[in-house]
Order: sequence, then C-alpha cells, then structure tokens
Amino acid sequence: MLQLKTDHVNLDLGDEIQRMESYTERLRGIYQSGAYNEAECSINLAKDDAILQQVHALVQQKITPSLKYSIVVGIGGSNLGTKAVYDALIGYHDLLDVNRSPRMLFAETADPEMLAQTAKLLSSLTSKEEVLVTLISKSGGTTETLANFEVLMNALKEKLGDAPLDRVVVITDEDSKLWNAAIAKGIACLAIPSLVGGRYSVLSAVGLFPLASVGVDIIRLCQGASQMLDDCFASDNLAAKSAAALAAQAKNGRIINDNFFFHPELESIGKWYRQLMGESIGKEQSLDGQVVHAGITPTVSLGSTDLHSVGQLYLGGPRDKVTTFVSSAQSADVGIPSERVFPELVPMIDGKSAADVMTAILDGVKIAYQKAELPFMEVSLDAIDEQSLGAFLQFKMLEMMYLAKAMNVNCFDQPSVEDYKIETKRILEESK
Amino acid sequence: MLQLKTDHVNLDLGDEIQRMESYTERLRGIYQSGAYNEAECSINLAKDDAILQQVHALVQQKITPSLKYSIVVGIGGSNLGTKAVYDALIGYHDLLDVNRSPRMLFAETADPEMLAQTAKLLSSLTSKEEVLVTLISKSGGTTETLANFEVLMNALKEKLGDAPLDRVVVITDEDSKLWNAAIAKGIACLAIPSLVGGRYSVLSAVGLFPLASVGVDIIRLCQGASQMLDDCFASDNLAAKSAAALAAQAKNGRIINDNFFFHPELESIGKWYRQLMGESIGKEQSLDGQVVHAGITPTVSLGSTDLHSVGQLYLGGPRDKVTTFVSSAQSADVGIPSERVFPELVPMIDGKSAADVMTAILDGVKIAYQKAELPFMEVSLDAIDEQSLGAFLQFKMLEMMYLAKAMNVNCFDQPSVEDYKIETKRILEESK
Repeated sequence: MLQLKTDHVNLDLGDEIQRMESYTERLRGIYQSGAYNEAECSINLAKDDAILQQVHALVQQKITPSLKYSIVVGIGGSNLGTKAVYDALIGYHDLLDVNRSPRMLFAETADPEMLAQTAKLLSSLTSKEEVLVTLISKSGGTTETLANFEVLMNALKEKLGDAPLDRVVVITDEDSKLWNAAIAKGIACLAIPSLVGGRYSVLSAVGLFPLASVGVDIIRLCQGASQMLDDCFASDNLAAKSAAALAAQAKNGRIINDNFFFHPELESIGKWYRQLMGESIGKEQSLDGQVVHAGITPTVSLGSTDLHSVGQLYLGGPRDKVTTFVSSAQSADVGIPSERVFPELVPMIDGKSAADVMTAILDGVKIAYQKAELPFMEVSLDAIDEQSLGAFLQFKMLEMMYLAKAMNVNCFDQPSVEDYKIETKRILEESK
Repeated sequence: MLQLKTDHVNLDLGDEIQRMESYTERLRGIYQSGAYNEAECSINLAKDDAILQQVHALVQQKITPSLKYSIVVGIGGSNLGTKAVYDALIGYHDLLDVNRSPRMLFAETADPEMLAQTAKLLSSLTSKEEVLVTLISKSGGTTETLANFEVLMNALKEKLGDAPLDRVVVITDEDSKLWNAAIAKGIACLAIPSLVGGRYSVLSAVGLFPLASVGVDIIRLCQGASQMLDDCFASDNLAAKSAAALAAQAKNGRIINDNFFFHPELESIGKWYRQLMGESIGKEQSLDGQVVHAGITPTVSLGSTDLHSVGQLYLGGPRDKVTTFVSSAQSADVGIPSERVFPELVPMIDGKSAADVMTAILDGVKIAYQKAELPFMEVSLDAIDEQSLGAFLQFKMLEMMYLAKAMNVNCFDQPSVEDYKIETKRILEESK
C-alpha cells in the first residue's frame, strides 16, 4: 500500500478538503451500490468478482505454457494502464532479460517500424499457441488499433496459413460494431462497462486480462485498489487530500504537476497518469458551459536521471510547478563493492548500496525543494508489487474525480479530441 | 537534412530575428576560428577532424566482431545525446529484435534493478572482447556514474577473474581526477574540450565514440551538423527563427514547449532536448544578476499515441503551450492488407499504409491546432538517418544559444543543481 505526505504543499488545505465532503458522500453511495450506472462507476471495478472470474476463465482457456508473446493492440486508455503495471513489475527488464517469456508486446500507434519488426518476430513462431493477440478498443473503431490488428493478423496468416482467430481476444463495449463482428466470427470477447472510460478502465478486463495473461496477480492488484477505496471513504482520504493540494496550487499559478518517480520502472505509470490528468481536467468549458480552458499539465520525471537534465529548470526556473515525488521502499538492492577500480574517486560511496545512493539523492532533493520553497507532495509505496500498484492507480483515479470537482469540469468526457479526428477521417476518406 | 515552417506561430517574428543579428556575427566568428576558447565553442565540434580521427582510431583498437554489449555508463549530458541517436537509428528495435548485436546498454541512474539485470547479463559472456564499457563523466566525479561503473566492473571481475581495464574507455575533462586516475592505470581516455558542457557534447567524443562502437556513421552525423551550421550562418537561419518563435511565444504566456514527435523512435531525441532547453534557459538569475526565474518547460509527446492521452488537454486546456511538431519523410512503410478480419470496420483504411494513417493524423492535428489558434512550428526531417539527425541536433543546440540570448540568461551554466548535490553529499558523508 502507500503513504502520502502533504507537509510541504505550503498551503492550508482545510477549506478545500472541507468542500469535498459532499462529493465523498456521493462517491460512497456509488461504491456501496456496486452498480455501473453513474459516471464515477469505475470505482466499483476493484471489488467486482464477476469480472475477475470472467478474466480468469478466459486466461485458463487461452494461456498455455508455450505462450511467448502476449500482444496488446490498443492505444491510450486501452493500453496505458496495462503497460504501466507490466513495465513496473516485469517489462522494465525486457531489454536486459531477453529470453524470459511470456513477453508482452504493445502495438499502439500505426508505426511502420514497430509493425515490420513485430511481423518479423511473429515469423519465427512454431505454433499458434505461442502467441495471443488482445485487441482493445472501447469504441470499437479506433483507426490505429484496427489497422495494426489487421497487419499483425496478416503476418500470422502468412506464417500459419490461417489467421488464428482462436488466439484473439477482443475487449470492447458490449454494443460496439467490433463486439458484434467479433461475436459473429466466434472470437472470444470481454466487455467494458459502458460508463467506464478508457482512462478509468485499468481494473476492468482492459487491464486485467492482458496482465493476467503474463502472470501478474490481478487479485492482489484489485485488493490494493479496493483497500485504498475503503480507506479513503472510511478514514484518511488521501485522494481528496492530494486533489485539494493540486487544486489549491493550481489557483496559485502552479499549472504544471511534475510526477517525479525515483524508480525508472515506474515511468509508464507516469505516462498512464498523464492521460488520466490531461484528459480528465484539460477542458475548454466548465460544467456550467463557460469557456475556461481549464487544466494542469502533467509531466513525468525520473530520479536521479532527470536531476541531470531538468533539475536546473525545476530548482531555478519558473515557479509554475507542484511536484509529486513517488518512491518505494526498495526490495532489491546491490552493494557498491569495497574493492574498486577508482577507490579515490567519490569516496562517500564507501560501504553504500545503490539504493543508499538513490535515497540520499531523493532526500537531498527534498531539502533543496524546501529551501527553494517549491511545493511538493510525497507518495511512498510499500513495495513495487501488485498490491501497492493497485492502491496507487486507484488513489490517482479517485484523486482525479475530486480534482475535476474542485476545478468545476467534467471529469469523464474528452470532447476536444473530436476536433482532429474529424479532420483525419476526412483526409483519409478524400484520399481514396 | 531538415525543413522548418513557422507559418503558424501566429506572431510577427521580424523584430525578434533582427535583434539576433549581432549574435550571429559573434557565433560566425567563433565558428570560423575553430577554437575552443569561448562558451559557444561546441559549434566547432562538427568540423573537428582531429576528434573524428581519435575516435576512429580507438574504435579500431577496441571493437572486434565479437562485441555484444557496448555499455555506456553516464548520466544526463553524458548519455542523453548518445541514447537519442542510438534509439532513433537502432535501439528502438532492441525490444523486438533481441538477437541483434552489438547492443548498447545504458547505466544511468543508480538503479538496483538495472544493475542486477545487467550483472546477470554480463555473467553470460564468454570472453572480454564481447563487452566494452565507456565511462563518461565530464567532471569525473558523478556519484551515480562512478557507483554504477564499480558495480559493473565487479560483475565482470567475478566472471572473468580480472577487471578487464583494456575493455574500458574513459571520456572526461582532461584535467579531472578521473582522467589522471585512468591514465595512471593505463586505461584509454578521450577528452571533452573543457568549455563544452554536457548538454552540448553529443558531437564530441562523448557521443561519437559510443555511437561509432555500434556502427553509427559518425562522419555523416557530423556532416549533417556542419551543413546546418553553414546554412544558418550563410543564409536561412532556422535556429534563430525557431528561437525567435519560442521567445516571442514565451513573452505571450506560452511557457511550455511541447515537442510532438510523430515517430516513436524519436522519443529519446525529445529527452535529450528536455535537458538542452531545461538546463540552458531555466535560470534563477538573468545575465545582469536579477532574480527572474526564467525558463520554458519542455515536454515530449509522441504521435499518435499521445493524442489518445494528452490531446484533449492540448486542444481544450490552458493556452500555455507552443508546439514543435517533428516528423520525417518515411523510409519504411507497411501496407494495410486488403483481406481483413474486420473489413467492415474503419473502411477508410482501405488501400492505405501505416504511414498514410500517420500522415493523415498529423495533418488532421495541424488543422485542429490552426482552428483552435494554437501556435506551432513544423520540423520535417528528410529521413531518420545520421545526416538528418546530426542536422536536427545542431539546429536545436544553436536554437538554444539564440533563445538564451533573447531571454537574457546564461546558456551554459547550471548553478541550481548544486543545491541538491550539496545536501546529497552531506547525507552520504554523515551516514558513514
């Protein structure tokens, strides 16, 4: 699980948190109902045993010991949560641990380089059981996703003689054209509750099925999330507190929220959060229809790497950021050897481990931020494991609902993305 | 090479560009001198044949056909440029093309997970010729870099019996303690000209040696860069134009520069640029000593992935960004098959390729930005190859010098990073 410290937000949050009380009442009601008929219904995913059972049943049916590649074809809300958890637990090692399997591969944007390389990889398969393709599109009509799926299925067909539809799982809205087309072809389907938007869907089949396919313990992931909800609604509401800090600092001109992770394997969690915050509160109009151009821009930094990159900007530059430091009690560690090639250089690493160095840097940075009066929060995970990650994801999804409420915007729509989609569709159709 | 379009910056840049004329005179003088005695001297790296010769000589000596891993131990300016070029040309495929060699590995932050996995990988080596370790630290005393180096050398020693010092290359300032210690042990060294800072060092041995070690054509990389300098100083000064646009938009409240790459393999170029912009203009004080907290926050977005993530924020949210779209004329492409699993879904992809889809999306986005009156520039690379990448890197380094001039800050120092380094050092020393 995780802890949150807001001591260095440098603002009194009492009033802001107070105003959130009535929204907590509403959320608690939805949570107790367990139903999927309200915009906030994604908070009911973590305790939904029916979804877990469906996912586990399909995993048992599709996953064999010979599975080498679990390919997720999806973009945005359809893959960012899965990639966040996969990279944190497993995927970060894929570059160095090249023989481990099953590996998860991601086909997100319509990228010729990635498609060509993935097709090449698939041509080395010896049986269809070595691959599983999960096609995820909430609307069922995402251009890049469908294009990528067809290219990869064609590569499999060329290798295996037939497009192996029994090695495909489709995850989409139950009433989408994709759902109907897949059912008609006998392809296994899992549904996304219709009011659960992509960026809130990681604990639905969207995240749970692909994660389970490579061995992630999705029960513990959901347990971490539901524990977080129970805690927030019963006692210490970390989500409301964090949202209050972000809202208050935004009013104060801190219009960038830097998420500074001190473990590189959490970078994809940051990318998931970019969508969550960007799409949820980046809005042209307020709830009452005023043109407000609301929003806070989320950024992702990695410690200590980015201290050697944008650290100068953060410490010396514009006072336009509120920072969320995220770290974890280390499980793994590596000692720095006492017999060294250059013992006379940096003698202060004597007897230390890599984690000691990282901790000293993080502590040094916090002191420097304090001295520069830069506002920050501290999130500390107990470990980088399913339970703490589930808690973190849920904490952030709940935080965003409170933040949207505080900023008076619709947390769950994304009307502006239609602006470019319409143009793109026209261009593609006209170039026929 | 590359093109720049500033039609949609939505501001008249004439005055701003005019003011840069006198600085062009100064830069031209430094460029003609070829010397390394001015702060801007990194512009002389691209034409420095002596460096190329030194690098090639050492590559010939150290690189054998059996090389499997070229490990770069360095952080910030010591590895971001190398990683930018490597990932754009080769590294992006490493996850999918797992048997290719030599592969470049990066040890940047003091990350126990990465160190443990890399050590495990090194334990599979059969001879020391399979590995090369390039240790890069401009100051010679970077904590994470020295700690990582010692851990990896210890792993090699455990495998091979001895720490293979003849498989190490050190790149540092000629007068650093590291330089002297390495020379004393007979380790091969390459120097960084002392006035070339880390973020301007990619065309020095810092970038050229590791890139050449894995087969990147560094002559073409430098040719692209020097062609860009020649063009900027002789005729069409793209660097001044781009800097003028950024400076004018910053005055206008656009305090975030989003770098939106429409090829995922360019993400690391974006990360390199984050340091370049962040450290160069993110400054507490102006050149005349006023406390100004100057800076523009660089962000990196990937098309089309991030349209499904932060696109809503960009199109609907705060008017605080100026965007630089970066794309390339595709070389590779993959057709979308005409026989498809779901022919009735997204019929507009009929007869199109993946690159067609990407181009239509980029064009659609530009129209949407125009309609929303969001200011943007367009950079178009001829190809993702050494020459165009060299031109892009040089274009951006030169742009930054003009931008710092326009913003009246010191482009070449990073005084604020000492704030946390002092605290970290104290913590490590006190915990002895």
